[in-house]
Amino acid sequence: MLVLSSPSGAGKTTISRELLAQEPDITLSVSCTTRPKRPGEVSGRDYHFIALDDFDLMRNRQEFLEYAKVFGHYYGTPRAPVETALAQGRDVLFDIDWQGTQQVRQSARSDLVSVFILPPSADELARRLHRRASDPEDVVAARMAKASQEISHWAEYDYIVVNDEVAKSVAQVRAILHAERLRRERQIGLTEFVKRLDGEL
Amino acid sequence: MLVLSSPSGAGKTTISRELLAQEPDITLSVSCTTRPKRPGEVSGRDYHFIALDDFDLMRNRQEFLEYAKVFGHYYGTPRAPVETALAQGRDVLFDIDWQGTQQVRQSARSDLVSVFILPPSADELARRLHRRASDPEDVVAARMAKASQEISHWAEYDYIVVNDEVAKSVAQVRAILHAERLRRERQIGLTEFVKRLDGEL
Repeated sequence: MLVLSSPSGAGKTTISRELLAQEPDITLSVSCTTRPKRPGEVSGRDYHFIALDDFDLMRNRQEFLEYAKVFGHYYGTPRAPVETALAQGRDVLFDIDWQGTQQVRQSARSDLVSVFILPPSADELARRLHRRASDPEDVVAARMAKASQEISHWAEYDYIVVNDEVAKSVAQVRAILHAERLRRERQIGLTEFVKRLDGEL
Repeated sequence: MLVLSSPSGAGKTTISRELLAQEPDITLSVSCTTRPKRPGEVSGRDYHFIALDDFDLMRNRQEFLEYAKVFGHYYGTPRAPVETALAQGRDVLFDIDWQGTQQVRQSARSDLVSVFILPPSADELARRLHRRASDPEDVVAARMAKASQEISHWAEYDYIVVNDEVAKSVAQVRAILHAERLRRERQIGLTEFVKRLDGEL
């Protein structure tokens, strides 16, 4: 399980999309949300856009690995697709905030690698939030204020990527993914391979 | 400190050389040895070839981070160049065996990342050892026997690379290096960067 977190506007979603395009072996965990769809967003790709009633139903059935309320809307990670992908030996990418990360760390198996993405500067963060023209001004201001709170959780993450340039950040997240797959305890069948090798020597 | 270990013939030295060629920011720790130079080896690049008296002198002065006797010859890692490189903020690559790794882990600061390189098969290991024509037959046989002992320490390493193809293995070790540099606790100045960023928000 690979978690990417960052304040809004630090580039997490762009990095996630590029990563998925370049790494066919990873599955994105698509969150459910009760917030309205933004222009350009696709249901089932960016989010599952659902009604509040349906969200409550799923929450009551404990079908979320984590959920949270952010700016008046609910967000949740459905448990079933994650468990299916992991059972198939696939890596799963999570694009969630610090609260979600804490919940996933607690409710799921502990094999989680977490990456926090920082903006290169406060000015650049402001520019990126203003460029996202579909959000009204007060939402932009609220997101800037919330960025500070999100950033205060940076030290809970295994890796830190400062997103100066998207291509470089994507390469860095890919290096983390590739390296973590090479960790001894994660390589399935390695003990058997070494035993066989040793038997042949 | 990045340690590469493997049984003789698994490709560790080839991988180290390629890694150094592709990663200018890493310094190789060149070991001292009392064994004779092989054709093609360069003193100061592959090893510092020194006399037994000099080796004893350095050992008595505790100038080695680790040392061991292998097949009747001594090998040791001089402490001073490693400490100089680390003090300059440079990463240091160690091409040492499991005994050396254990000693370095104990005698040096604990910030060590270890990679064990496995041959893809016993047959391939035998082929590679025979190709190294400068070693007499009995040394080849002894190295095959020793490979089994070396491999028995695979589980003491953080990462495992099965060396099927050199270019792929080099890419894997580079991913490990790049990822480990992105670990939160290793990024110098990150706390100050986040403080400044947060102050500007």
